[in-house]
Amino acid sequence: MRVSYEELHETLRRTLLKVGFEQGRADLCARLFADTDRDGVYTHGLTRFPRFIEMIGRGVVDVSARPLRVEAHGALERWDGRSGAGNLNAHESMERAVGLSRQFGVGCVALRNTNHWMRGGSYGWQAAEAGVLAVCWTNTMPNLPPWGSSRPLLGNNPLVIAVPRPAGHVVLDMAMSQFSYGSLAAYRERGELLPVDGGFDSEGRLTRDPRAVEESARPLPAGYWKGSGLALLLDMAAALLSAGLATHQIPADPLAETRVSQVFLAFDLTSLGGPENAARIADDIITNLHTAGGEGVCYPGERTLRVRLENLQDGIPVDASVWEQVQKLS
Amino acid sequence: MRVSYEELHETLRRTLLKVGFEQGRADLCARLFADTDRDGVYTHGLTRFPRFIEMIGRGVVDVSARPLRVEAHGALERWDGRSGAGNLNAHESMERAVGLSRQFGVGCVALRNTNHWMRGGSYGWQAAEAGVLAVCWTNTMPNLPPWGSSRPLLGNNPLVIAVPRPAGHVVLDMAMSQFSYGSLAAYRERGELLPVDGGFDSEGRLTRDPRAVEESARPLPAGYWKGSGLALLLDMAAALLSAGLATHQIPADPLAETRVSQVFLAFDLTSLGGPENAARIADDIITNLHTAGGEGVCYPGERTLRVRLENLQDGIPVDASVWEQVQKLS
Repeated sequence: MRVSYEELHETLRRTLLKVGFEQGRADLCARLFADTDRDGVYTHGLTRFPRFIEMIGRGVVDVSARPLRVEAHGALERWDGRSGAGNLNAHESMERAVGLSRQFGVGCVALRNTNHWMRGGSYGWQAAEAGVLAVCWTNTMPNLPPWGSSRPLLGNNPLVIAVPRPAGHVVLDMAMSQFSYGSLAAYRERGELLPVDGGFDSEGRLTRDPRAVEESARPLPAGYWKGSGLALLLDMAAALLSAGLATHQIPADPLAETRVSQVFLAFDLTSLGGPENAARIADDIITNLHTAGGEGVCYPGERTLRVRLENLQDGIPVDASVWEQVQKLS
Repeated sequence: MRVSYEELHETLRRTLLKVGFEQGRADLCARLFADTDRDGVYTHGLTRFPRFIEMIGRGVVDVSARPLRVEAHGALERWDGRSGAGNLNAHESMERAVGLSRQFGVGCVALRNTNHWMRGGSYGWQAAEAGVLAVCWTNTMPNLPPWGSSRPLLGNNPLVIAVPRPAGHVVLDMAMSQFSYGSLAAYRERGELLPVDGGFDSEGRLTRDPRAVEESARPLPAGYWKGSGLALLLDMAAALLSAGLATHQIPADPLAETRVSQVFLAFDLTSLGGPENAARIADDIITNLHTAGGEGVCYPGERTLRVRLENLQDGIPVDASVWEQVQKLS
């Protein structure tokens, strides 16, 4: 079934007011959830909302906490998320990084003690809308075995890179596992095999069977040793810059995952050469990719715009049982 | 055969003086090449030296050119490499980024019109030695087909992340292809199959045969669509920030590859919380990885330290024919 963007947003907003968010914050938090489904990232929006509300009930997420700046050194600031709502904390951090970049050319906010930011791409789109080139990443609870081990010691630590482009922002949002658990579940529910190996089965063989990977809890790092190394370095950088927790210190339970560390970097393009020049370079690259690459090639963010338009026109697809559950909460 | 570090460095230095480098620059350039072999990265050191000298002869690399700052906006600067030696330009850019980070907490140098930086990890080790957390990347000539295309439209755009750690720096140096052409050649010469799929054969099938990938010129992006997306975004960010060329504008010929774009980011850890705190966090993460991960797991940079010690003690392995060739140049 499909519901309108307005109905989705309003239902979430009402629920957030009910659990204690202030007006403006309830509105923004609901918007960040609704935008995620509007953009077709169904694994990270509405579907996660009931768990988000449950984590508020358990005291993992504090509805009234706002991030606090604890140290500042010019263009680099360290903030404490104080266990507030992860998407609101991340949004405020990116906003601050953008502000720092206006002043210093580049700005960095390192955020500790925050909660799951839901869709990482949200903060890439946010920065791109502000005309800023951005990089951000988060660590997570342990859910990914490093290359050479069968134990989930690393996080899948999503990385976002966003390039503003008036004709369509380019936003990469990638976790360090080849498939997220959300994707594995989606393939399993459709009864499909993964298009490429997605992890190991319980006997340690590479497999395309999503259920086997879910059972072994051994998803594959993207690029084998490469994604494994990158996940480790993203965790180290997030923990060191924020002086926050590293993956191995975060509870390995989706309902208890908290106090994660994040980094938000913004680069102001108006300061150097101007936005017209940046737009021209970005357009050149995308045009070449399309013309020389053929129909099979698209850039990260390209499909998003198509899905967004479709979902705004026809309504946003929702899982009927999740939607019912959320309506009861509201 | 093996040669001592001193002999290797001196031979390269002499050659560089002969082709016109100033004393200090010849010394540093030779050191950057020699350190690469000392650290076991045999694909990017001595082996590439004859080509480097040839590119000087062809006028692709200008021995007397030094990078010039063309724009500055606080912590973000844009430099022109003026077709100088790629490793010297990169070294100076990272040094400048480190300097900016001391002043602003974070520093960024975007460099255009530079040449191949040889081993990217060099600038990660350089930053880590300075106690700074660093990220840098370069674009390259087109050598990697994007996911969904058989034409090499992307660069393999190496990305480096370095975390300083007194007990052993953690330095990730990864190209966006699953295997570099240097690695493919090494597997082929040893008569070995790749440990995992490394690209497509000329009929479009995934293969572990290194020769088949060399012949088709279709190496696999690390993590399939993930490495493909990351390579694109790294290229866009490098070109936009430096106002330099993007991959599709760079000649697809190793002897003519020039005017590449690079980004150097440094984060000063002394400004926030202090280096002791950073070292403690880094040690915690590595200790957990080693104790929980078992013997199969090591961090990026760990093997480097072992190889470095061995090569300093026993001499550095060199290919006899390349060594003869370089000696004739000197």
